[in-house]
Order: sequence, then structure tokens, then C-alpha cells
Amino acid sequence: MTLREVAELAGVSTATVSLVINKKKNARIADETRQRVTEAIAQLGYRPNAMAKTLVSGTSKFIGLVADGVATTPFAGQIIHGAQDEAWKHGYALLIANTEGNQDLEKDAIAMMLEYKVRGILYSTWFHRPTDVPETLREADFVLVNCFSPEAGTARAVVPDEAQGGQSATDILLRGGHRRIAFINTTTPAPAKDGRLQGYKDALEAAGIPFDPDLVLEAYPDQEGGYGATQDLLELGVGAVYCYNDRMAMGLYDGLRENGLSIPEDMAVVGFDNQEVIAAHLRPPLSTVSLPHYELGAAGVRMLLGLDAAPLESAVKIACPAVERGSVAVHSPA
Amino acid sequence: MTLREVAELAGVSTATVSLVINKKKNARIADETRQRVTEAIAQLGYRPNAMAKTLVSGTSKFIGLVADGVATTPFAGQIIHGAQDEAWKHGYALLIANTEGNQDLEKDAIAMMLEYKVRGILYSTWFHRPTDVPETLREADFVLVNCFSPEAGTARAVVPDEAQGGQSATDILLRGGHRRIAFINTTTPAPAKDGRLQGYKDALEAAGIPFDPDLVLEAYPDQEGGYGATQDLLELGVGAVYCYNDRMAMGLYDGLRENGLSIPEDMAVVGFDNQEVIAAHLRPPLSTVSLPHYELGAAGVRMLLGLDAAPLESAVKIACPAVERGSVAVHSPA
Repeated sequence: MTLREVAELAGVSTATVSLVINKKKNARIADETRQRVTEAIAQLGYRPNAMAKTLVSGTSKFIGLVADGVATTPFAGQIIHGAQDEAWKHGYALLIANTEGNQDLEKDAIAMMLEYKVRGILYSTWFHRPTDVPETLREADFVLVNCFSPEAGTARAVVPDEAQGGQSATDILLRGGHRRIAFINTTTPAPAKDGRLQGYKDALEAAGIPFDPDLVLEAYPDQEGGYGATQDLLELGVGAVYCYNDRMAMGLYDGLRENGLSIPEDMAVVGFDNQEVIAAHLRPPLSTVSLPHYELGAAGVRMLLGLDAAPLESAVKIACPAVERGSVAVHSPA
Repeated sequence: MTLREVAELAGVSTATVSLVINKKKNARIADETRQRVTEAIAQLGYRPNAMAKTLVSGTSKFIGLVADGVATTPFAGQIIHGAQDEAWKHGYALLIANTEGNQDLEKDAIAMMLEYKVRGILYSTWFHRPTDVPETLREADFVLVNCFSPEAGTARAVVPDEAQGGQSATDILLRGGHRRIAFINTTTPAPAKDGRLQGYKDALEAAGIPFDPDLVLEAYPDQEGGYGATQDLLELGVGAVYCYNDRMAMGLYDGLRENGLSIPEDMAVVGFDNQEVIAAHLRPPLSTVSLPHYELGAAGVRMLLGLDAAPLESAVKIACPAVERGSVAVHSPA
């Protein structure tokens, strides 16, 4: 079915049909002509292709997602899952450009999405951090997902609630009856570093336990970092430890085992992230706090579409739920 | 810069300008008129938007990637990385639709990609398996990545070379001086199940070692499966084992440790996949064979663009390189 057949049926030129389809306001077309064309279109079941429809409606059926490594790094892929599911509910499909930090690619990807008239763009990072906002991104409706602008009040954003998560992690140990609880924080600067420490402090305060800075250690946030912190942890003489992330806890498991200790009997351990292929499969399975990647992606889409509040003044925070497994005994002695 | 300004400069109607831009062959436009319009376009620096350019050139600057869970599952994300890098070298950007097996979404995603005139489509799965080819996919140039059609000769495909990988894994142990080598295969049917077993057999045969079916066990391909296979493995009285994948090896590490055994001294262990966040971080770091996800993505793009041979008769196979770490001692006694 082509433009030509519509034109022939309506008795006009193809150029006229094109002008009608594109609803050009200042095209000099008689109402009666416009009517004939519209009826011919309906009669023939002519369906302009998606690009023509886009020209008419103003936006395509796409929502763009520009990510640095969300699709390739084995950590935050659920952001895509959540965004896709939510978009689909509202008739949109997600088009993803995964840039690996290549700024030229990022610029071109955003430009293409704008030219193809996406409904809006989600800009996402694979871990929670501040980000510059590319200039061209501001030509679209956009929401930052798992990241935020360091210039407060300039970009709508949705991030995990690190402090609430840190409090939840510490609470798991408090519920297990522990009161002297160590925290192995990351050495790397990040919103999670400050947030998770704040949550640890908030939980202790709520339980009436004085904060002891000597119980806070630091290590690189992976298995080797956790393993390397074992001796310092043992010297603290605590029976419970909250690790900045699951990978650190995995390394600590090895270190504790090498020292002849059992988890949770000799040391209760809590992680953070609920990282797939790790947390549930350690022995014993690791109690932890989940990063709500799926919910972040879904919230990003709802904020973009105006279904959820999206204030400029500060990032929306999504709660990090506790996941209790087998690395913290219940009601063990302090 | 608009169509209208070009029309005014050239002294023609906007409809005429549109017809010139779209290079409609049967539009009755005098050569002299066409010339005036072209000059006006050049003079004004008018740049039709991407959609108009697409109408002219026939395809957009996109290559589509339709994946079931490559972007969301923490395993094969490097397929996207490789495809993106290769596409970018040739002036294309990758647009990803991650469907999680939702067939309606898959149909719509392919339809949208066709309507937006992608150069071609890569259809990918997060693990190597046979796949039905959606009917609409056949309207485009397409290549199956990490999957293949069970109807031989009907679709171009690129997959990992499981047999060569299995042979490489076994060879790591043979080089370590072992001759009685167990293989813990998966229980789940998959090309990898047959391929990796074949590779194990090929390696033994090349080394002049008779194949002993009693040395082949089966377990679920994750940590719990590997852990559960420990007793059966110990009863074989071997000093070396090749595990179907790294997750299984991780569980086996726990089982061997609980039995007071050291790796590699008491048991040399080799995995498969080189799974990020696991293989390199076990203690000792796990020798394994890499699934070439990045290369699969890149090869898919090159095959799509006609830069690499892409025969219909059988899938192209990409080699799986060995990654030797610390779980196999060198020249230990058989």
C-alpha cells in the first residue's frame, strides 16, 4: 500500500497526500481535499511507516536508555529489566545504547535518539555515582538512573537509598542479638561509602549503642579486599561484621575459614548488593541488602512519563530491602 | 533551517523540495528545477533530519540487537560490548532490545527496527542454545549470535567452539602432569553439554589415554551442584577434575575444603566460562576456559556487514581460550 495508491483514489497528487499526512498547518489544502485524502487512507487501510507516524505524532514509540556499562557489566543489568517492563506497560520499547564511557559514542547515541524522536531518555550508570549531564541530553525529557548531577537541582534523578540500606544491614545483626558490630567500609570514594556508613551509625544510635570509630575498617571492595581485612577484623574481638558489599564478604569467608572460624557461629556476616551468582551461593548463604536495580529502572520510566513525582531539587531514593539468609544466627549472645 | 526556507529560496513549493530530497524517480520535476532546489539546499546548509536521510539512503545508522537476557543476565554482557565496538568502527550504533523471552515484545522490537530501517539485526541469547527464528526477523539481514537454528542451513550464526574449549580445559590438566582426570558435566541438555564432553574425550585421545566413562559425573551447573558432587568425586580417587563451569568449581572448592583437601595440591581443578566476579577471585584463583562473548558480538557484526564469511550451511565457531591461574600445579605427579 503506497502513497501513490492513496493519491490515485483521492484524485490528488502524492505531494498533496504527503502534506495531509504530515498535517502541515500552513499547507494550502482545501478542507474538502483533506477529507477526500483522509477517507482514501481509511478505505485502503494505508499505514504510513513508523517514521511518517513519528513525524505526525511528534514522538516515536521508543524510550532511550544511554548507559555506561549497565548492559555489559555483570552487576546492574536489572535496571534494564525494570525499565523495559515498565516502558512496555505504557506502550513503549526501550532502545539501549551501551557506551562503555566512550564520549563520542554517547554523543552520537543521544543525537540519534533525538533525531528519531524518542519519548525521552534514561541516562544510567552501572554503579551509584555523580555524573556530568551531557549537553545534548537536555534537549530531551530525561531522568538520571542510579546517578545524579553534582549540581543540585539541575536534573531529575532516582538512586538507591544507601543510608536506609546501611541501616537495614546493621539491623539484621542487631536482630541477631549482636551489639559489638564491626563495619568494613570501602576505600573507594562513592555515595555508597558515605551512605552505608551513615546507615550503620543510624542503626546503632536507634539501638542505644554508642558509635565506636575503631570498629570501622576499610578495604578494597572486592574479594581480595575482604580477605586482606581478616586479621584486622579478628583483632577487634567482635562477633559480628557488616561488609560494604558481597564480594568483600566472599573474601572474608575465605579468611575466616583459614583461621578456623565458622560462620555464623564464630562470626556473623552481612553483605550488601545481593549480587547474583554470589550472595545466595556462598556457604552459608549470605545475609545481605539488595540494591533495587529493577525498581530503579522502573521508577526512571515512570518519572519520565510523569506517572511518578520527579522533583528537581533532589534525587528520588528507592529503598534497599534486607535479604536474610544463613550467615547470621538468631539471638546469638552479644 | 526548514523545508520552507529552501522552497522560498528555490522559488518552488515545499512539496517539490520534498520530492527532490526523497529522490522520487517518477516525480515529474524538470532537471532545472531539481538543480535549483539542490543549490538552495547547499547554500542554506539545510540538513534533513535523520529520518529523511534514512528515506533517501535506505537504511539508518543503526544495527539492531535483539536479545533474550544478554543485557540483564550477569553472564554474557560482553556480547554487547564486542558488537558495539565493531559496529562503531564501521559507523553504526547498536540499538538493543532486551526481551527476557517476552515474545510480543520481541515481535514489536523487530518490527520497529525494520520500520526504522536498521542495517541489520543480531539476534542473541545469553547462553549457547538452539533457537526458533522469528518470522519477521527474516525480513532483514540477520545473524544469530551465541545461538543457532535447529534447521540446518537456514540461518547464519556464530557460536562458541565448545569442543575445542573442552579440549583446552582438559589440556590444562594434562600439561600439569595429570592422567586420571574426572569430568563433572552438567545435567542440563545444551550444546555445551555435548561439546565439552567431546572436547574432554578428544584431549584424552590425543594424549593416548583411554576414555573411562566412570570418570564422568553429572551435576547441576551451579555452586550447589558442584558442592553436591564432592563425595562421588572423592570416591573416584583422582587428583584432577575438570568442571563444566566455574560456578560448579566454586561449590566444589567448598566441598573439597570441608573434606580437608587443598587445591591444587590434593585436587587440581579447572572450570569453564571465566565468569567475571568468580573465577579470578576464588582462592586459589581458578584456571578455566573463557567463553569468547566479546568476540562473538564483534564477529556477528562483521558477518552482518559482509566483512567476514557467513555461510548458511553451519554456524561459525569462535575458539575458547584457556586462562591458567592457580588451581592446577605444574608437573605434579599423576
